[in-house]
Amino acid sequence: MDTDPATPADSDERPDDPGSDRSLEDAYDALLDRCRRWNAVSSASGVLSWDQQVMMPEGGTPARSKQLSALSSLEHDLLTAEETGDLLEEIDERSGDHAADRSDDRGETLSAEQAAVVREIRRPYERADAVPRDLVEEISEASSEALSVWERARADDDFDAFAPHLERLVELKREYAEHVDPDRDPYAVLFEAYEPCLPIERAEAILEELRGTLVPLIDAIRESDVDLAVDTFEGTFPEERQEDLAREALDLLGYDFERGRLDVSAHPFTAGNQFDCRITTRFDESDPLSAVGSTIHEFGHARYTHGLPREHFGTPLGDSRDLSVHESQSRLFENHVGRSRAFWERFLPTFREHFPDASDATVEDAYEAVNQVHPDNRIRVEADELTYHLHVLVRFEIERDLVRGDLDVADVPERWNEGYEEYLGIRPENDAEGCLQDVHWSHGNFGYFPTYSLGSVMAAQLYAAAEAEIDAGEGPDLDARVAAGDFEALHEWLHENVHRHGARYETDELVRRATGEPLSAAAFTDYVESKYGELYDVSP
Amino acid sequence: MDTDPATPADSDERPDDPGSDRSLEDAYDALLDRCRRWNAVSSASGVLSWDQQVMMPEGGTPARSKQLSALSSLEHDLLTAEETGDLLEEIDERSGDHAADRSDDRGETLSAEQAAVVREIRRPYERADAVPRDLVEEISEASSEALSVWERARADDDFDAFAPHLERLVELKREYAEHVDPDRDPYAVLFEAYEPCLPIERAEAILEELRGTLVPLIDAIRESDVDLAVDTFEGTFPEERQEDLAREALDLLGYDFERGRLDVSAHPFTAGNQFDCRITTRFDESDPLSAVGSTIHEFGHARYTHGLPREHFGTPLGDSRDLSVHESQSRLFENHVGRSRAFWERFLPTFREHFPDASDATVEDAYEAVNQVHPDNRIRVEADELTYHLHVLVRFEIERDLVRGDLDVADVPERWNEGYEEYLGIRPENDAEGCLQDVHWSHGNFGYFPTYSLGSVMAAQLYAAAEAEIDAGEGPDLDARVAAGDFEALHEWLHENVHRHGARYETDELVRRATGEPLSAAAFTDYVESKYGELYDVSP
Repeated sequence: MDTDPATPADSDERPDDPGSDRSLEDAYDALLDRCRRWNAVSSASGVLSWDQQVMMPEGGTPARSKQLSALSSLEHDLLTAEETGDLLEEIDERSGDHAADRSDDRGETLSAEQAAVVREIRRPYERADAVPRDLVEEISEASSEALSVWERARADDDFDAFAPHLERLVELKREYAEHVDPDRDPYAVLFEAYEPCLPIERAEAILEELRGTLVPLIDAIRESDVDLAVDTFEGTFPEERQEDLAREALDLLGYDFERGRLDVSAHPFTAGNQFDCRITTRFDESDPLSAVGSTIHEFGHARYTHGLPREHFGTPLGDSRDLSVHESQSRLFENHVGRSRAFWERFLPTFREHFPDASDATVEDAYEAVNQVHPDNRIRVEADELTYHLHVLVRFEIERDLVRGDLDVADVPERWNEGYEEYLGIRPENDAEGCLQDVHWSHGNFGYFPTYSLGSVMAAQLYAAAEAEIDAGEGPDLDARVAAGDFEALHEWLHENVHRHGARYETDELVRRATGEPLSAAAFTDYVESKYGELYDVSP
Repeated sequence: MDTDPATPADSDERPDDPGSDRSLEDAYDALLDRCRRWNAVSSASGVLSWDQQVMMPEGGTPARSKQLSALSSLEHDLLTAEETGDLLEEIDERSGDHAADRSDDRGETLSAEQAAVVREIRRPYERADAVPRDLVEEISEASSEALSVWERARADDDFDAFAPHLERLVELKREYAEHVDPDRDPYAVLFEAYEPCLPIERAEAILEELRGTLVPLIDAIRESDVDLAVDTFEGTFPEERQEDLAREALDLLGYDFERGRLDVSAHPFTAGNQFDCRITTRFDESDPLSAVGSTIHEFGHARYTHGLPREHFGTPLGDSRDLSVHESQSRLFENHVGRSRAFWERFLPTFREHFPDASDATVEDAYEAVNQVHPDNRIRVEADELTYHLHVLVRFEIERDLVRGDLDVADVPERWNEGYEEYLGIRPENDAEGCLQDVHWSHGNFGYFPTYSLGSVMAAQLYAAAEAEIDAGEGPDLDARVAAGDFEALHEWLHENVHRHGARYETDELVRRATGEPLSAAAFTDYVESKYGELYDVSP
């Protein structure tokens, strides 16, 4: 950010410049107005992206690309406009440490909430302002090229074809990080695009802890004689009935269809805002539990979004905290609710209504089926609750070392295969099901993967705290409520402690206020060791 | 438009200002770039509107309004930016009559096509530039208020509740017209928003001619003993089968589903661009012919949009001519194809496949059923091919007189009822089914209604010309082709003569090039007198 205060000469040229007559409150309101504008554009882009993935006919791509790129450039212009910087500067001067030094200090201050809003606006402004527009466009073009090369390379199992594009993206992203802060670890800077409020060292320590817990636990499971495969959930389960079942699950959990929709897309996702947040899912006719799990996962995202304060739409108080917090909400419902015995006590009769062939399935059957661990699976998006994090760990280590310059692109396949060997005891058969399996790097999204695991860790910590508080209160305990299909207390706890705050608190502060502790892997470790220890008859 | 040429001082402040080094070609390219940007925003808004009417859950309105209003204001900013005016000025000076007077004239000229593009960009720029932004926002707020009052007023049959809002909108729109041109008939100025290339006098003369033809023809039909009601098409026709049938009709006509979709909405409409143009329809279980007709109508719109040159997306050469030309394409298919014997020769077997109860229907039955005239119908959107235009005529006369100050809002209901009495021999039972039936005036859209009739008139003229040319060529005549389900020659003719030109020619020029004559009601008169004379056994 340009830290020079606006000069009078500058001011004369801007019709809406306040001069010195504007109060701090007015400057704050003006900043908020601008923020609402770029967020309206950003949420409009979100509608276009949803449409592109769910509704758009194939031929629509050329027009859609132009629409999205025009909106993205307008959003960038609104965010980085000189006026944004001037307002931030003005607010900073009047309310911050500078104020005391100024002769015209009026003793104005921002409330803690307003200060949080300014902090959350300043962060993306400074980042966008620091990076030259040409570089942003170069990255966007390079990724769009890389994406189509990656699609072919994966189909042809041809890493060499993708390698130069990956190399280029690593270079461009390093350059990007250098513009943001030349003195810091570039991977840390890139990670902050997705997780701005959690230092990379904290994230790395949590991932280390996960590895320490999960590698031996999964080893033990591999050695265990227990087999959780359940025949009842194998066969053919027609798509329409699966969709009906997914809707039943959403109704049971309390998804608000008046502010959302359920559709089908190639990759399940959730998109929208507090007024209109939509879920997608997909169906595999041979695996009815997969769509249930994925729908419940997306429900968690949507419930968070629906719970953001409506009156703050378009401002940080009405926006979600970052990726790990969002993922915590989806993982909480997917794993702690949807993979619990209690949930299946309530939901199995519904499942059997839709699939009478499964009429002899027991709650224990369902519980075992949704909690099977597959250490031999090589594909992240098909991974179970435990091995998932080792898939993430391999990717995290590779992308971190690439960005830090400690790994050559040419060595990625071997490093990938070694990582799988080391953590999961398997090797991919080829690069298509190895280091070419995920789309993220072809978007240049280095630093994204860790947020998946951080979200699971946070989910365990939040669920434990919710459970403790609900169980200590009056009425049935949380497990009994879930078994009765009563999610009210859980929703209330999440709303009170997470959703209603928007981006008011930084991540650790949010978690600390909700659970009494900063984010750590402790609750997750307890949860998986106890659950899977029992299921597979192994001790940690 | 500000007609002062850019001063050097102005130029210094704009980083992309050409100074005097920019060639005419460069200035033209820069203008086109800007135009593509505002059109990308405008077409993005189109996606949001489609979504709102087809997909959006009810709760989404507050966010959607903010998104649409942000985009509309950005589009306006891009269109009216100083740079747009400067570029138009620069191009005008270098290529126009001014050029000869300038010492630095480089003898550059625009091609006829480029000149057309500049003309089509200048027109909306000058209009937007002439009207103060505050007034635009005032109109937008007043209409949004009027819209919700109108909804209640119609439900309650309470014109008095709506009257002050209508009054306000008339005033604001008169003010708008005054800004655009204080010396001209304000209704003519408003009409130009929808139909910029056809003088209101021409439009009015055509509407007069329609009245002269249709009032006696409908009188004669009312007196005729012929009854075209066909029992076969009465009963219950399930919605899903109607949808299958609508898709069959679209397939038969050649709708490109890879660049479009068919969905259901409260009011059928078509929206999109040459890469992605979508149709909606609606189903009435008691009337299967209505959805067929409405789907064919929308097909005509979509076929036009799909036929616009892809390489010119976002510029006038890739955009459609105005409302009457668009409506000519929908009416051509709805009336001249979909209401013909030939079409039903091909389509009736398909209809009977989907509705076996209608298996004894003959082509003549279908032809009569789709061409019934209902002089006692009071609702425009339910009107037949003939009475439709008298509904339009009543509205046209009222809105014209309101805007010109020749009619008071308080007198609208009486004037409406008199108009219906005079033209159709009926009186609405109340204002809800009278002057409150249409949404247009609550949007402040004065000048829109005539384009519906102009479109039908143009459709008849274009179809007659296409038929003459195809019939004069080799192979079967057009009627035989339609009966065989072969629309290739018709599509080619329309593409060659209408679609591929985008907004290259002004309306009359387009029609003249296509048909050899400027737009007139002659072909329409011939068509309806011959067709309905035969059907109802009446002579004009």
